[in-house]
Amino acid sequence: MEAVAWVDERLRLLDQTLLPQEVRVIDVDTVDDLVGAIRRLAVRGAPALGAAGALGVVVAMDEAAREGWTDQRRDERIAVLRSARPTAVNLAWAVDQVAPLVAAGRAAVLARALAILEADRTGNHEIGRRGADWLVARLGARRLRLLTHCNTGSLATAGWGTALGVVRELAERDLVGGVIVDETRPLLQGSRLTAWELAQAGIEHAVVADGAAAGLILGGHVDAVVVGADRIAANGDTANKVGTVGLALACADAGVAFVVAAPESTIDAASPDGAHIEIEARDEDEVLTFAGIRVAPAASRGLNPAFDVTPARLVTAIVTDRRVIDVAGGDRPVASGERMRQVGE
Amino acid sequence: MEAVAWVDERLRLLDQTLLPQEVRVIDVDTVDDLVGAIRRLAVRGAPALGAAGALGVVVAMDEAAREGWTDQRRDERIAVLRSARPTAVNLAWAVDQVAPLVAAGRAAVLARALAILEADRTGNHEIGRRGADWLVARLGARRLRLLTHCNTGSLATAGWGTALGVVRELAERDLVGGVIVDETRPLLQGSRLTAWELAQAGIEHAVVADGAAAGLILGGHVDAVVVGADRIAANGDTANKVGTVGLALACADAGVAFVVAAPESTIDAASPDGAHIEIEARDEDEVLTFAGIRVAPAASRGLNPAFDVTPARLVTAIVTDRRVIDVAGGDRPVASGERMRQVGE
Repeated sequence: MEAVAWVDERLRLLDQTLLPQEVRVIDVDTVDDLVGAIRRLAVRGAPALGAAGALGVVVAMDEAAREGWTDQRRDERIAVLRSARPTAVNLAWAVDQVAPLVAAGRAAVLARALAILEADRTGNHEIGRRGADWLVARLGARRLRLLTHCNTGSLATAGWGTALGVVRELAERDLVGGVIVDETRPLLQGSRLTAWELAQAGIEHAVVADGAAAGLILGGHVDAVVVGADRIAANGDTANKVGTVGLALACADAGVAFVVAAPESTIDAASPDGAHIEIEARDEDEVLTFAGIRVAPAASRGLNPAFDVTPARLVTAIVTDRRVIDVAGGDRPVASGERMRQVGE
Repeated sequence: MEAVAWVDERLRLLDQTLLPQEVRVIDVDTVDDLVGAIRRLAVRGAPALGAAGALGVVVAMDEAAREGWTDQRRDERIAVLRSARPTAVNLAWAVDQVAPLVAAGRAAVLARALAILEADRTGNHEIGRRGADWLVARLGARRLRLLTHCNTGSLATAGWGTALGVVRELAERDLVGGVIVDETRPLLQGSRLTAWELAQAGIEHAVVADGAAAGLILGGHVDAVVVGADRIAANGDTANKVGTVGLALACADAGVAFVVAAPESTIDAASPDGAHIEIEARDEDEVLTFAGIRVAPAASRGLNPAFDVTPARLVTAIVTDRRVIDVAGGDRPVASGERMRQVGE
């Protein structure tokens, strides 16, 4: 069951809000439906958003043909899709990859969108291999106790995952001594989605409350933390699911490797540093309620940033489908000379 | 409505597992019922556990008289009560205060237990005053943006609270510019209990997912973090609700004051440091389910430490009912000469 697929000339999404209780797919025929699915996180995860966005341009073209839209109307809808969520750069990146081909026709757009999907799939294996190699080189070929946050697996990508791809690659080499899974409040992508993927893969794991992670890291129960990213700034500052920077602080304090795994398309050269990354503020009800039940008193307000920014100084390494960036050693996703040139432009 | 009260010659508890949806009291007539209430957190919070434990000795004496127990049987039940939960030292401390009076009769035990209750109530105001004075001296007489974790208010004590007592005192001085309340998974003492108390007191607050706290602290949205404690070791290492050490790491990184507020009875001179504090492991279902609904897949396991230990090096100050311990300045709850004497004994 793939998170994002092109089936019978339509975009098909797995509705991740219902997992693991229910496996239901959504066939998407309109931009509105796709934007809605993205905003309520039926499809989520930076690379999966990229694939959905690219195929969404085909959805927009089909809808335009069916509804007799003007080109302007169609392009406006594509722009709405491009910015359906602000933080994960992959969505905008993928739309920007295919949108210039609209004039060349549906076949050209679809081919490019499917190529993005396929590149993500193969790229995941590259990330997994490079990440596993790096961890083994650093920590030895032994069963590693890993900790991860949110969901970065097959549900978040077109393939087998980014950070979770590293875990899967290590598991294939029999080098996983258990995975601690942050439940990842408020939407529980860890306990619902990552635990589901690990259970299906037969990889031993334990779900913990997000607050438990720092104590486990400081207590020596974790050999490495591996997380994904929604946007990586040119200097290595990394936006990821809220709760990530707390893990990085614990790793820095305990001398534990903190590894970010993401495709190159997550690196945004246009964001010089984390201060330039827009952090999505989501509805307070995600925090104040649970499964439709109000938890907090009616008079209470909530604050619900969906992401936080981990400064590069807390990142050990960034693993992409093309390279390992030794951030702790001073390397940066975009070399500083290149960054200065861009600022000067 | 008090968390722990002695009403009509019986121990009355407010059932905190049902708040804020339902306000229900429990009249406790047996040690078993009290131990059950403590273990399922119907009554919780280190100072409230102390008060409940002290009054619980009277419950044990009454039950012994009613059931015709031998003294040995009664003392065994008191020992079970004393260790109903392992981490909060106040429970054992309070039972140890009253148990030697059992031979002197019920009136003596009850008087001492009620004195503990009353001392906690007045001590809360001392903690509040000292904590507020310290924060104002350090940060200026301005509206402070505070962050707190778990519940340390009237529901956790016999009075108006420890860490939340500091918040209440500052609010009475009109020096609170908003309180960020960690929801405190897995049992949501923040969103259920602290938010309820703040709403009732009319203090502006916002509930956040636990993972959001570190990013908010690093982002400059918090002037001070104030938390309670379940046990403070002689060297200042502090066990508190799981998730606390992550806040302390963020504060240390951002140069934000991290203040522990607790009565002197929370300081355990018999624990030289945090490594000597037993951390309660609670049922994995607290993490794997929510409101009776299984969240994680059936094949997934959970790990549920109820507390973590914040090393003294990350604590700015400890505020008690008698003093402010300048931990960042090198002071310790038990002076190191005194600690060495104890070890030598």
